[in-house]
Amino acid sequence: MVGSAIAMDLAKDAEVRVVDRSPAALARVADRYGVATHEADLSRGEAITEAVADADVVVGALASHLGFGALRAVIEAGKPYVDISFMAEDFLELSALAAERGVTAVVDCGVAPGMSNMSAGRGVASLARCDRLEIYVGGLPVERRWPYEYKAGFAPADVIEEYTRPARMVEHGEVVVYPALSGIELLDFEGLGTLEAFRTDGLRSLIHTLEVPTMVEKTMRYPGHAELMRAMRDTGLFSKEPVVVKGEAVVPLALTSALLFPKWTFEEGEADLTVMRVATTGVDSQGERIRHRWDLVDRYDPATGLRSMSRTTGFPAAIVARMLARGEWSRPGVHPPEILGKEEAVFDHVLAELKQRGVIYHHHLDRLES
Amino acid sequence: MVGSAIAMDLAKDAEVRVVDRSPAALARVADRYGVATHEADLSRGEAITEAVADADVVVGALASHLGFGALRAVIEAGKPYVDISFMAEDFLELSALAAERGVTAVVDCGVAPGMSNMSAGRGVASLARCDRLEIYVGGLPVERRWPYEYKAGFAPADVIEEYTRPARMVEHGEVVVYPALSGIELLDFEGLGTLEAFRTDGLRSLIHTLEVPTMVEKTMRYPGHAELMRAMRDTGLFSKEPVVVKGEAVVPLALTSALLFPKWTFEEGEADLTVMRVATTGVDSQGERIRHRWDLVDRYDPATGLRSMSRTTGFPAAIVARMLARGEWSRPGVHPPEILGKEEAVFDHVLAELKQRGVIYHHHLDRLES
Repeated sequence: MVGSAIAMDLAKDAEVRVVDRSPAALARVADRYGVATHEADLSRGEAITEAVADADVVVGALASHLGFGALRAVIEAGKPYVDISFMAEDFLELSALAAERGVTAVVDCGVAPGMSNMSAGRGVASLARCDRLEIYVGGLPVERRWPYEYKAGFAPADVIEEYTRPARMVEHGEVVVYPALSGIELLDFEGLGTLEAFRTDGLRSLIHTLEVPTMVEKTMRYPGHAELMRAMRDTGLFSKEPVVVKGEAVVPLALTSALLFPKWTFEEGEADLTVMRVATTGVDSQGERIRHRWDLVDRYDPATGLRSMSRTTGFPAAIVARMLARGEWSRPGVHPPEILGKEEAVFDHVLAELKQRGVIYHHHLDRLES
Repeated sequence: MVGSAIAMDLAKDAEVRVVDRSPAALARVADRYGVATHEADLSRGEAITEAVADADVVVGALASHLGFGALRAVIEAGKPYVDISFMAEDFLELSALAAERGVTAVVDCGVAPGMSNMSAGRGVASLARCDRLEIYVGGLPVERRWPYEYKAGFAPADVIEEYTRPARMVEHGEVVVYPALSGIELLDFEGLGTLEAFRTDGLRSLIHTLEVPTMVEKTMRYPGHAELMRAMRDTGLFSKEPVVVKGEAVVPLALTSALLFPKWTFEEGEADLTVMRVATTGVDSQGERIRHRWDLVDRYDPATGLRSMSRTTGFPAAIVARMLARGEWSRPGVHPPEILGKEEAVFDHVLAELKQRGVIYHHHLDRLES
């Protein structure tokens, strides 16, 4: 879903080769975007080494269990790398290796993580002192259908993972762990109405890279979704522990995920939207209390047939990949996007490029009472 | 749960013998109420014939799959019978046999079905013309705990059966079938607050025995329960059809029921309540539009340790059993309680006896605008 958006974008002004293990997926992307293809099993490091040998830059959009291994293989191949693969492992463990090989790798470079981090980095760098960072993000269907009013671009089990994994926030400079789906609040978005937001474990690298005493990350859905998810979670329907039912061991999450799959899957051509708000609150160099806020509301693009989630996640990776290929940004090591966002010119360039593609981040500067 | 309440009540002025297949259950009831006991497998007709041979009256409180067979066996043994066993079969099929044997059997003689039917019969008989019958009933925990705010005196699968079985109502004199959990409305009860009511398939015999053009039966819960149940039902979690999950066939209802069991089971000594409203609307002999309404709000009795559901279901059976034993009511055949309720003296006697036991039906006569 996202990889093909990246391929489409890069194919406008670059020679692109898409590597995948699925001949059908390769045929589809070749047919749509005229890119070269290469069939390979990317769980094998040697397959990656071979596939990237003549590349100027490599972009990764892989299943989570392949992400870390691919990052290592690309670094070892000595190629600049932009990655949007979610990985459970700590990518910073490979930063020393990348520095040693002179390789620049930018990871978590989608929308959230991705543009959320970049905006956070920019917000913090724009303030003399940042007291508070808030990130709110959600991917939603345009049509709201009871009871979930939700569809996912990926397997229900991966969404449910966000609803069960303890959520790390920062309070008074310390990491505080909350249950996911807690701290429900309502937010209004122009042209979209009221959404609910609840804690999820999305701060990731920001916990370590930014020194902000309060950091909050929440996922957004249409109101009511979180309570229903909590009810199902608390009933045990999201549990990975087998339950013995009539002598058979059943994993509740496996059944729940199977039942939700048809309900949570977008129809062909069904419109989705992506909504995000990143806000950094603090004081400027004059001692005034201000807030920098970036709001995004992006929708499915019928012209390209690309879902908003593909656009908002794929385009930042494509834009940063060009910068790395051209040497416009280079810093050996593995970096999350807040590092790029700290540099105003880099951030402005990325926002301008996104705007050209119709993905528009509206910046607001709120002056607050002291 | 209910059988022991019946035994306790009858033991006050009668010689009681409790028959069950469980020695532990028999020992408990003998210890508590000083009744005689007899161990037998009541799925065998001969075991019933033997067990009831010297009885003046027999009371049945059996699992649903045993109800119809037991009714037949008691009729064949020639004994008066009062039954609270739910049965899927049509008990009227045995009415001719009972008439032939000169046996009076009163079935569905608990709270609902039971007192709901009796009140409906009384209400209809009190009016020159009854236009509308409404029955609202619910068993609830006193302590409301998120998300279900519900506990059951029996297995979750039996409750869920009420949430899935199509609900038969009567409109314009015709049977109309609705999905269960539909037609949600809010009702207020003095001292209890607001409850929600939704359609369930509880009219049963009333569809055939009363000629009322509009008949509605709804189950009550604390507000919000029905929507959550609908969400789970529509997701497929109440389905009896196996779903293949990772190569294994899983029956969703079996898992859901297993997960709900610990959440829906009353703690030892936990307070429950029973709430019911039966209303018959029509015109009296003077042509005035009136409504007869009976409201019940009954609670757990700490003195006896009996749950409200046991009290409200068991006591009517015990009271009617005495009437049959003494020959105060006799009509060979199988009868649902609305037949008894049509007789004012019978109905008043039952209400008076219930009141002595603290189960109080408040009668309201509402005069309506014509």
